[in-house]
Amino acid sequence: MATPQETLRILRRLLATGVSSRAERLLARIHPADLGPVFSGLTPPEIRTVVELLFRQRRAASTLTELPAEMLPMVFEALGDERLAQVIARLELDDMVEMVEWLPEERRERVLALLPEYKLAELRQAELYPPASAGRVMTTRFLALHEDMTAQEAIDRIREAGEDFEAIFYLYVTDEKGHLRGVVPIRRLVAAGAQRRCGELMIEDPVSVGAHADQEEVAQIVARYNLLAVPVVDADDRILGVITVDDVIDVITEEATEDMYNLAGLSEEDRVFRPARESVRRRLPWMLLNLAAAFVAAWVIGLFERTLEQIVALAFFMPVVAGMGGNSGIQALTVITRAIALGEIEFSSGLRAVGKEMSVSLVIGMATGAVSGALAYLWQGSPYLGLVLFVTMMLTMAVAGILGAAVPLLLKAMNQDPAVGSGVVVTNLTDIFGFASFLGIGTLLLDRLL
Amino acid sequence: MATPQETLRILRRLLATGVSSRAERLLARIHPADLGPVFSGLTPPEIRTVVELLFRQRRAASTLTELPAEMLPMVFEALGDERLAQVIARLELDDMVEMVEWLPEERRERVLALLPEYKLAELRQAELYPPASAGRVMTTRFLALHEDMTAQEAIDRIREAGEDFEAIFYLYVTDEKGHLRGVVPIRRLVAAGAQRRCGELMIEDPVSVGAHADQEEVAQIVARYNLLAVPVVDADDRILGVITVDDVIDVITEEATEDMYNLAGLSEEDRVFRPARESVRRRLPWMLLNLAAAFVAAWVIGLFERTLEQIVALAFFMPVVAGMGGNSGIQALTVITRAIALGEIEFSSGLRAVGKEMSVSLVIGMATGAVSGALAYLWQGSPYLGLVLFVTMMLTMAVAGILGAAVPLLLKAMNQDPAVGSGVVVTNLTDIFGFASFLGIGTLLLDRLL
Repeated sequence: MATPQETLRILRRLLATGVSSRAERLLARIHPADLGPVFSGLTPPEIRTVVELLFRQRRAASTLTELPAEMLPMVFEALGDERLAQVIARLELDDMVEMVEWLPEERRERVLALLPEYKLAELRQAELYPPASAGRVMTTRFLALHEDMTAQEAIDRIREAGEDFEAIFYLYVTDEKGHLRGVVPIRRLVAAGAQRRCGELMIEDPVSVGAHADQEEVAQIVARYNLLAVPVVDADDRILGVITVDDVIDVITEEATEDMYNLAGLSEEDRVFRPARESVRRRLPWMLLNLAAAFVAAWVIGLFERTLEQIVALAFFMPVVAGMGGNSGIQALTVITRAIALGEIEFSSGLRAVGKEMSVSLVIGMATGAVSGALAYLWQGSPYLGLVLFVTMMLTMAVAGILGAAVPLLLKAMNQDPAVGSGVVVTNLTDIFGFASFLGIGTLLLDRLL
Repeated sequence: MATPQETLRILRRLLATGVSSRAERLLARIHPADLGPVFSGLTPPEIRTVVELLFRQRRAASTLTELPAEMLPMVFEALGDERLAQVIARLELDDMVEMVEWLPEERRERVLALLPEYKLAELRQAELYPPASAGRVMTTRFLALHEDMTAQEAIDRIREAGEDFEAIFYLYVTDEKGHLRGVVPIRRLVAAGAQRRCGELMIEDPVSVGAHADQEEVAQIVARYNLLAVPVVDADDRILGVITVDDVIDVITEEATEDMYNLAGLSEEDRVFRPARESVRRRLPWMLLNLAAAFVAAWVIGLFERTLEQIVALAFFMPVVAGMGGNSGIQALTVITRAIALGEIEFSSGLRAVGKEMSVSLVIGMATGAVSGALAYLWQGSPYLGLVLFVTMMLTMAVAGILGAAVPLLLKAMNQDPAVGSGVVVTNLTDIFGFASFLGIGTLLLDRLL
């Protein structure tokens, strides 16, 4: 198979000749999911041409859903309102909602006005649900059957539905008022006798989620129960839509990226293929916050100017205290954040988790503190310097363990994202505590150190 | 719904009465996936009883597959060899392989000897594939059809297979030698006329993976093409097994945990519900490595003892340089590691990515360096101190950006896991560079600073 770079080169050459038929044939051979890397190397006029060619093949919409969302603005800019509306109209509801979110404010209403009326109504309905909720991720194309239908009638319904419906693997059984009663895996329908009723075949009380449920929660449910799809219901248990496993995989991947990014103080849009200018703009505010915290640490050290003047060697060990403390904090933070994300925290209570992280860090602090103390003694010849380093590292690392575990749990308890800002808070508080205790204890033992 | 804690309390009370029938009824009402948190709170004798009760309900095997793998040793210890072998024998191949990996060396052969012969042979076969490869994750229960079969004959095959087969949603079409020819989604089979041949209905040249392919690669393929399952083939394109999307979700979750953990220097087994003793044992070696690096940084600072003695204020700003540099490095590292994991790096070349991260960090270094320089000037009254800080931060952050981007790309190019050890290397090299350049430039400008 050609690499994306090779495909891109060939495609651009074909486009440059102006004869679109060969470019069209090349595009027809590429899976929509493989077009993303190719798109990222095209100029706006080339993107316009490629979208035109894909549109003729009725593949423009499916290609757009496969692009990383962060790439959409570029594509949108290359397209006129009308063509964009036509492409969007061909999307499934969940993809449509996502795509529209990426439309620049000022173009949104203009493009939406060009959508068919029923599409627009569906979209407006979905937009009533909170961002990142089940209501926004669900597709509204699903097959609901009545309990009294026979297996054969159900199969006939599937035949009628044709290719139009997104992968149907579960059929949902509802009563006359649309309440969800059960689910029939298509496999079971096929294996059953033609005259069996859906009410007999169905698995009763299937797992379902509310339309306002958070997408992360939905993903946890699908992963936990090994589902291929989960029905979305309203407060009265009426089925509204279905979330399929491919969307769940996207959610899981997104949420993992989000957690990793949040720990490092990055925003989710800050991706490898975005322009540098944008990354600077997104990272700068957070780095300025971090700078403020670092200056607090600097100010704390400044309070001990006299001590440092007398024993400059204390300055050598400051990075040891800060580095080891920061690491312990980040380790505790990572374990707890991940446990929250995977729903593992229920295996343990929050308090027990904090206690565990504290004792782990304390023990490691004692071990590495003892080594550090011994090294400091050997290097600088002062047993008291070794003692100060040992005590400080033990204390700082225990505090780091507590902070690393407690900060995300507290954020979670306050219904905040446990990863946002945790990294900056934990490492900077640990630094400040570490410097204050190291230099503070040093000052107390100043006579012995001299 | 009762919380896991409540369920645990009730279960333990019922077990304590010695009348197992009520405990059995309670267990029957809980989904296997919800038993994990309950298990973690039981004593070994209680675990033994619960597994007995689940075994009678034929649910012991499915429960075990739902437990976090890190919890298995505890359960294994509570069970006798014979019972354990019986439970393992009821697992699907992929789950069996995973479970056996968690068996302690010294018990493994004893337990395996108790397995039915054909199960053992299957297991031995799977173990020939490398760890974390497609061959180990695949299930060998799948339905393969011949091209000449009619839709009706295929449906009859599904009926015969009964409930035994794991979720069948795709049927694979092979020629007489077992070569993979195409795939028929069950939906299409149902919608088709009874006399259509599978060869006409199938989608030709379906996506497949080799048995030696890395599970992460398999997960990327399934996610990219929105598949529910992917066939595993040998070098001659003969179908060996199938990897289903629920296993892919596990792989995606595992790999995300692994990446996050690796960045923080944690091993994957270090989970919130594992004993503290074990976490200490796992984290300590890495923390000692980190300590060694921190002492190199301390030694570098020690080289500038004279300078620090004369201008102790330099020590105040060391955490600013180290903290900001470390952060820039971790940000670049996170963006690149994630891009590699998601296969996004192909949107950009490695060199371009390094260049981008360098320029982003350089610009942010200039901005935050200018602010820091100004603050240092205002605080300490020395414009030269401000200048030293500005220049150092600019340089250090640019270097951090290069290291953060280049280290994982280099590891990847050497076929190593791009996240293992990256964090410790990047932050410590950045620290050392930062201190050396800050104090080095300070020494060069010593006359101006005094």
